[in-house]
Amino acid sequence: MSDLEKSTNVVWHNATVTRKRREEQNGHKGAILWFTGLSGSGKSSLAHAIEEQLHQQGCRTFVLDGDNVRHGLSSDLGFSDKDRVENIRRISEVAKLFLEAGVIVLTAFISPFRAERATARKVVPHGDFLEIFCDSSIEVCEGRDVKGLYKRARAGEIPEFTGISSPYEAPSTPELKVLTGEDTIESCVDQILQLLEARGVLRINGQ
Amino acid sequence: MSDLEKSTNVVWHNATVTRKRREEQNGHKGAILWFTGLSGSGKSSLAHAIEEQLHQQGCRTFVLDGDNVRHGLSSDLGFSDKDRVENIRRISEVAKLFLEAGVIVLTAFISPFRAERATARKVVPHGDFLEIFCDSSIEVCEGRDVKGLYKRARAGEIPEFTGISSPYEAPSTPELKVLTGEDTIESCVDQILQLLEARGVLRINGQ
Repeated sequence: MSDLEKSTNVVWHNATVTRKRREEQNGHKGAILWFTGLSGSGKSSLAHAIEEQLHQQGCRTFVLDGDNVRHGLSSDLGFSDKDRVENIRRISEVAKLFLEAGVIVLTAFISPFRAERATARKVVPHGDFLEIFCDSSIEVCEGRDVKGLYKRARAGEIPEFTGISSPYEAPSTPELKVLTGEDTIESCVDQILQLLEARGVLRINGQ
Repeated sequence: MSDLEKSTNVVWHNATVTRKRREEQNGHKGAILWFTGLSGSGKSSLAHAIEEQLHQQGCRTFVLDGDNVRHGLSSDLGFSDKDRVENIRRISEVAKLFLEAGVIVLTAFISPFRAERATARKVVPHGDFLEIFCDSSIEVCEGRDVKGLYKRARAGEIPEFTGISSPYEAPSTPELKVLTGEDTIESCVDQILQLLEARGVLRINGQ
């Protein structure tokens, strides 16, 4: 028996730094804030706005969005239904890893299908997945059209565009619905922070 | 122009919580410790042992290994050369996300091919990728055979097994080589912590 094996058998071999220990170190719990909504409904802006607030409060956070996922982990995937499902599957698995790391992870993807959001929810323990519906009419989103995508979709340049040529299945029972087409972002941020407070994410052991 | 757009245009739209701010919050820098070596060479044990030490020092860490990747993110992949390459590609992209989150991420996979390790290195900024070669002879690894995999491989039950029926390409210029077949795990841990110290990972702005 080698020295390595001897010294690893008892203490070292398994992971000793657990999610619980990380959460105690961080002073808050891990959670997944899963934003869903049409393109232009403010998912990414809102996720980053909340992250800024949480960071200032000393929380560990991370935003997964198209910018850091579509060009990296999912760079081999397109926008067919099959590829969209696989994209969301990978995101849910990565979100789970960040959750295990004790991080408040915010995902900002259209994620238009109920089934795939349900799958993402099932990957993690009950209560860790908070679905936040950014509810904004397509008229408002299209009127905004920050990236010019609606214009291109209407011109037929994007074959499967959510809300135009591909369905968006609104959540029936999200943990929270925010009216991003009507309310200010500050109000939406407040509502989400209240949700985190109510769910005990920002406290450890009821403190 | 909606309230949301007005209030997001200037401040909110982009990510404001940068890697640098996270690192300042954490009190150390992010880094990728990429362990490579034969099955049974101690990669995972060593990664967890270092994580324990770093956690006790107040660092934010995360270990990616077969346990949390092969059953999740890469559950659709097998062990063909093609699938192994895709597995390592995904791991390198996830490691990059944790790096952006300011975390010291430790990856513990055989990662037998030089080309794929080189690809993983290129995904992140120069200096953030520290390749650690767990150098242990196949005799020691096979003699240990904690998971019984070598026995199965010799019996022909595992068609492509690194070191038996599939090559292991040892790193020629890793950031560190540890002799996991000869040294104690405590000694290996010390050497790696010294590497992190020397590379400035454990300090912010030279402090």
